[in-house]
Formats: sequence, structure tokens, C-alpha cells
Amino acid sequence: MERIKPHTLSGFMELLPQPQLQMEAIMRTLRETYSRYGFTPLDTPAIEAADVLLAKGGGETEKQIYRFQKGDSDLALRFDLTVPLAKYVALHYGELAFPFRRYQIGKVYRGERAQRGRFREFYQADIDIIGDGRLSIANEAEIPSIIYTIFSSLGLKRFRIRVNNRKILTGFYAMMGLSEQSGEIMRTVDKLDKVGAEKLRLMLAEDCGLTDAQADEILRFIAITGSNEQVLAALEPYRGRDETFDRGLDELTQVVRLLGAFGVPEDHFSVDLTIARGLDYYTGTVYETTLLDHPEVGSVCSGGRYDNLAGYYTDRELPGVGISIGLTRLFYVLSEQNMLNEAYCAAPADVLIVPMTEDLAPAVRLATRLRGADIRTQLYTEQKKFKAKIQYADKLGIPYVIFLGEDELLSGQVSLKDLRSGEQRALSPEEAAGIIRSDMAARAGGTILR
Amino acid sequence: MERIKPHTLSGFMELLPQPQLQMEAIMRTLRETYSRYGFTPLDTPAIEAADVLLAKGGGETEKQIYRFQKGDSDLALRFDLTVPLAKYVALHYGELAFPFRRYQIGKVYRGERAQRGRFREFYQADIDIIGDGRLSIANEAEIPSIIYTIFSSLGLKRFRIRVNNRKILTGFYAMMGLSEQSGEIMRTVDKLDKVGAEKLRLMLAEDCGLTDAQADEILRFIAITGSNEQVLAALEPYRGRDETFDRGLDELTQVVRLLGAFGVPEDHFSVDLTIARGLDYYTGTVYETTLLDHPEVGSVCSGGRYDNLAGYYTDRELPGVGISIGLTRLFYVLSEQNMLNEAYCAAPADVLIVPMTEDLAPAVRLATRLRGADIRTQLYTEQKKFKAKIQYADKLGIPYVIFLGEDELLSGQVSLKDLRSGEQRALSPEEAAGIIRSDMAARAGGTILR
Repeated sequence: MERIKPHTLSGFMELLPQPQLQMEAIMRTLRETYSRYGFTPLDTPAIEAADVLLAKGGGETEKQIYRFQKGDSDLALRFDLTVPLAKYVALHYGELAFPFRRYQIGKVYRGERAQRGRFREFYQADIDIIGDGRLSIANEAEIPSIIYTIFSSLGLKRFRIRVNNRKILTGFYAMMGLSEQSGEIMRTVDKLDKVGAEKLRLMLAEDCGLTDAQADEILRFIAITGSNEQVLAALEPYRGRDETFDRGLDELTQVVRLLGAFGVPEDHFSVDLTIARGLDYYTGTVYETTLLDHPEVGSVCSGGRYDNLAGYYTDRELPGVGISIGLTRLFYVLSEQNMLNEAYCAAPADVLIVPMTEDLAPAVRLATRLRGADIRTQLYTEQKKFKAKIQYADKLGIPYVIFLGEDELLSGQVSLKDLRSGEQRALSPEEAAGIIRSDMAARAGGTILR
Repeated sequence: MERIKPHTLSGFMELLPQPQLQMEAIMRTLRETYSRYGFTPLDTPAIEAADVLLAKGGGETEKQIYRFQKGDSDLALRFDLTVPLAKYVALHYGELAFPFRRYQIGKVYRGERAQRGRFREFYQADIDIIGDGRLSIANEAEIPSIIYTIFSSLGLKRFRIRVNNRKILTGFYAMMGLSEQSGEIMRTVDKLDKVGAEKLRLMLAEDCGLTDAQADEILRFIAITGSNEQVLAALEPYRGRDETFDRGLDELTQVVRLLGAFGVPEDHFSVDLTIARGLDYYTGTVYETTLLDHPEVGSVCSGGRYDNLAGYYTDRELPGVGISIGLTRLFYVLSEQNMLNEAYCAAPADVLIVPMTEDLAPAVRLATRLRGADIRTQLYTEQKKFKAKIQYADKLGIPYVIFLGEDELLSGQVSLKDLRSGEQRALSPEEAAGIIRSDMAARAGGTILR
């Protein structure tokens, strides 16, 4: 037979079993958290009609899109989960209840230049709350509490959710008579972390054509820091000069006040006036989430409030607020930074049963019983040397092996070996199950991240 | 703004929230069952290099494949999960422990002619056990026990797993000197259910060129029915004439004997000598699963034992056994047959909190508390009429609403309304949580299918 060399395309993540088990544990945490907040799961096709997917106009992404013909159809793979959501809500509007709260964890496709840590196929995990005409500000405060719960549940401690409000920025630049240049200014200000204040002042003057006085005022504004209460207090003197600014400050104040009730500790959350988010369509609260020990990674969960989800499909006003986690990239980063906890749930089974008799029925009955008790059980029935059987369990990280030989069958007991301690004991099947289950509970008490 | 009419491609399933919740519940059951049997999850890319995906040669499927260029690359969307598994095992051979037990639930793509109940994008849910050179027969008995557990867990009662062994068929046709025509004969015999015995006799004579005596012998053979023990006993007289047949009968006998130990009741399982499975590569036990009340649906879970998973990638012998559920089609059928239990888990939340005061903080604190107690909680903070709020909960099927007004805040109580009975009571938050939780437990005790 002619052989083809098997390979996986570059830019496509394909995990070995152990990291895949960890990835699944992260996805399970996301699904459970989103559900606890009352979000409904959605699953839209990965392929859409190209005209539907590109209705908004592609811009930068258009070149990256996987687009192809099949028969007479012009098709494309989705490049995010937001456009499919817009399509879904516009298409099924009459059958949905609003506010419509959905989560979706799905693969998206971008044919970017391949490079380490960049993926062409990657999971996004999105939540959005879509209003019909209006949407209460409380939703904008709820979003950071979901981010907080997710990262805390994963076991992460050192992270911070940074929050701003686009109306404050828009209003501030309007006060200064700089509305037209505000987009360019915000993109420049976004580089503050990278270039520092002095370089930023130069860029504002040279690239954006601002006077020294204007550049100074912007630098003073974005230098407002401190506790959330301090930042809010420092913004109060700007009140009364621009309606949009005042509305933004009201919203930000409400979001900050509600966050305590949502259970988000102050040290995991900060108002940060430099955050703008690149996308043009955010109009209210915006979010970024940074790992305090790995700022170089950038934001691992971002989003914000927008006024018009589906303007290119419908004339209904559909305001919303949402966030997205780039799950494949996040997993890559956590893995690279050695932050995954190997002791947590990285084995495919809790116990391996090794029959030592010709007749397999007793071992099979024991496996059936343990599985009935929700213990993940593998049977090893291959004819191999004893050592190979133990090595199999070892390689998979299965913590326990049960041997079932003539002696055990006669005595009605099983031999339970703890592969970590090496200890082996003769026990009744119930006792063995009890030990395995309490060990499972102890491991489940850990977290996915160190 | 120019508007594009939103639509979803035909042949692509896109569910509304309630059925999607039911689909997710089915997927969760599959994941949990596969895990209990010690299978490890796998997730391979949906896109592969076309030469890798088509290494085996496409045959019938080749025309249906979504294949396209991106830059210089010739790419294709996977059309099943078996070829990607073969690639994975050949590629990562040195890093895997054998037998390698994996499950994968993922979307596959076939550009078939669109027709009701046929999908171009659909989920397959596959499990396979791959051996390194050899694989014990016990694995072939374990597979039906997994099928049994899955369908039972979903709440299905009237189904039957039909089992045969290809070696018995191959050996039987060898005894008759019909090895060369055996493929064609098996394909013809496969039509027995549709055409009946008399028509089949004609087809065997005319299409396969058999003598009347040969056709009669085949009809006598496939007419062997009865209890599993009866069928096995009726096969014994054929022993000693063909080695392959004898091996097949030994295997089938072992599979039947072990099934009791695996906990599969005799009435859910039958030896059926007419089952052959179309694919050429099955070499041992083969499986089909039929819904007793809907035989017209055909097999909802099929598979079998094969000797050579990845011959087109590697010269290693990788025998295996596996089954596949066409999940999207199964869901479509269950839904069409009205078999989904609406009372089970079809709401996105267990309770809706409706604040009746300007200050949202007390309602937010209550929501945080309930979510902390694993109760799926939505907050309704939109400014709508009272009736609209109740209608929202009703439309989503959320069973409870909690009202929090001035009175409740003063008394430290909440008003809990059961939307099904209409009953409303003033309770402490703990009492309300207790009622919601016991109701959740009662609903979870139900099954996904009626």
C-alpha cells in the first residue's frame, strides 16, 4: 500500500490525551459557570453563506477568511462568534425572549500567517446579553462578576479585570473639541503601556497633530489612577461639560457600586481610563483582563457594551454586552507558563482492573459495579507481562490498580495498589471503591491551575 | 446601511435555545458515560491537508468532501472521525499508551444533496479502542455494554443491540466456495428486511449467480434465530469445516458470555446473522442498534472490529474496535418522534430574580448567593411592566420567580412564586433556595427522553 506521511496542519492545535483532559476540564468550568448565570448554550454552523458572514464588510479579517465554493454556493468558515450571533438573533428574533443571554464555545477560523502561539483554528468562548431596544446597565456590572467567577474557579488568583466606559472617553474628547481625531487618539493612547508617557506625548503631537497643551491634558486625564473610588472622585470635576461624558460617568459609577454586590473583590477589579478596545462598535463599559504575573500575554478576556448588534441584517435596535475568551490561545499560554496542575484530572480513569485469571467474567463484573458507582474504570485484558500492565497505568497516570487473581476470587477480596505510594492491600470491593472515591473527591477539590 | 437577509445554510442544524439545551444534555450524558468507561477525550482539527484526509482514497464520499485552497495549501474538512483518528494514532504513536481508548464528539462535513433529515454538517460521537499489534476479544464485548449504558441513561427502553461476527460470515461463504462473491452476497443479504425472503432468493440467483441449492443454504443460515444461546447452538454443527468460521464462532460465544457480566440484559441484545455492515474493513464483531418502535430509522449506533486502522499512514498493525453515533441525525429523529422530555432541563435557569426597588444591590446580592449555591440564576433588571417580566420567565420555562420589593427587604424575606402552580409564598432566602434545589433534584431525576 502506498503510504502518506501523517501530519497536522501548522496553526491547528492538536493535543495529546493528558493536556486534552485539562482543556476539557476548563471547558466544563466555563459551561458550568455560564449556566449558573442563566446563559443558554448556542451552537451555530461553522460554515455560513459568504454574503451573510461578510455582511458587515471584512476589513482586516477579510483576507484571513477561509472562503470557498461548493456547487453554486459561496461559503465561508466563521471567523468569530459575534457575526453568527447577530445572524441568529436577527433570524430567530420572534422566537427568542429578551434579554437574550447566550454562551457559545466553538471553533473559529482565521488563515493568519502561522507563528508560535498563533492559531488558524481556535476556540472562542463567548457570552453576550442582547436587549430588545434597551438593555439595563446592571448587565454591564454582571459581566465582570462572571469573569471573576471563571478565573477564580480555574484556580487563578493573580488577575485583574480592567474596566472603562467608552462614553467617558468620547465625552472627554468632545469637551476638548477633538471628536474627529478621537479614534486615532485612542489608538495612540492604547500604546501607553508599551511606549511610556514621554514617547506618547510626542506621538500625540506628531501623529495626531495635537498642541502641547492638548497632549498634556490627555496625559493628565489618563494618569488618573488609584482605588476605584478615587478614580471616580477624580472624574467628578469634569462633569457638566458634556452630556455623553456625564452619562458615562453615571454608568461607570453604577457598575463599580454593583460590583461589590456581585461578589467581586476590589483588588480583582480596577477602573482604568486607558482601556478603549480597538473595535469601533463598543459604546459603553469595556473590559480587559490581565494576568498580573504575565502582563506580556495581554488581555485574556475582553469585551464591552455595544448599541447595535445586527444593523447589517435588521433595522431592529439590538444593544448588547459581551465578552470573549480566546480559549485556545489562553490554554497555550497557561501551558507554556507551566500553570496547569498535573495532579488535577489528567488521567482518563480512576482505576485500572487487571484480571489475573483466564475467566474474565469476575473482573468484568467488578468493572461494571465500579462504573455503576461513577468510578471511571478501565479493564486491562491484553495478554502482556505483569510489568507492562503496571507501566500502562503509570503512563496514563491512573492512580489505582486492582488485581483480581485466584486468591482474591476465593477470599472475595481484591488487591488494591496505590501507584503513587506503591502500597498494596487486600480489601473488600466496597472498601476499595470507598478509597478510590475519597481520593477522587480530594483530587476534585483541587483546581485546574496551580 | 445596506441590509443582507440573514439565513442559515440548508443542511446545517441550528437549534433554538430549548432544543439546544436538550442536545447539550445528551452530549453531557455521552461524555460522562464514555469517561466512566475510561475513554479519554480527543479533539482533532476540522480541517486537514487534503492528501492526508484522502490517503485511503475517497470512493463514494470523495465527491461530497468540502475541499478548497488557502494560499498554496490543498485543504479539506473532515468527513468522519475515523480518518483523523488513524492520522492521530500514526502521528503520535510513540506518545500514546495502548490499548488507546478515545472518544470524540465533533462536527463532520459532507456536501450531500440536501434533503429532510440529511445534514451536511453533523456531529458524530465516536469511541474506539486501538491495540498495538493485538487487541483482546474482551473489548468487543465491552462495546455493547457502553451502547446499552448510553441509551439507558438517556431514558430509552425499547432498543436492541444486534451483534454478528464477520469471521462467521466470511468462513461460511468460504465453506460454500463462494469467497469471491461474498461481498456482493452480503450486500444482497443486507436487503432481507426490505425485500423479504422470497425476493432475496431470486436476487441471490439472478444478481449473484448462485444455484438454487446455494441460495437455499444461505437462506437457511440467515434464518437461524432465537435466543442468543439458541443461535450459538445452531451454529455449532458448522464447526470444523473452516478455520475462520470456527474462530468467529469462538469470538461470538465469548462476547455473548461476557455480556451478562457487563450488565447488559439479554432482551437488549441479540445475535443477528444478517448484520454485515457495509464497510470493507470490519473483520470481527459488528454492531447495529435499532429503536424497536422506529425500525424505519435504521441503526442509530453502529460499528465493529477492524484489523488495520491506519495502513495508509504506517506499517504498524493497529487493530481496533469502535462505534459511532450520528448524533445530529439521532437528535433530529428523537425530536421528530416527539421523544424528548420537555420537563427535563429545557430551561436556561432555575430561578428568575425580579427586583422591585430602585436599588438593585439587594437583588444582586441574592443572585450571587444563589449562584454560589449552584442554582442557575437570572436577574431581570429591565424596566418593563410586571406582566412582561412574568412572561419572560414563562417563555423561557424558568420554574420559579423571586420578587424582592420594599416589604421583602424590610422583613428579610423573599417572595417565591412557582410559575407552574401559581402559588406564591413569603420565605427566608434559605427556605427559598431549599425549595428550588429540591425541585432541581426532582427534575434531574428524570431522563432526557420520555
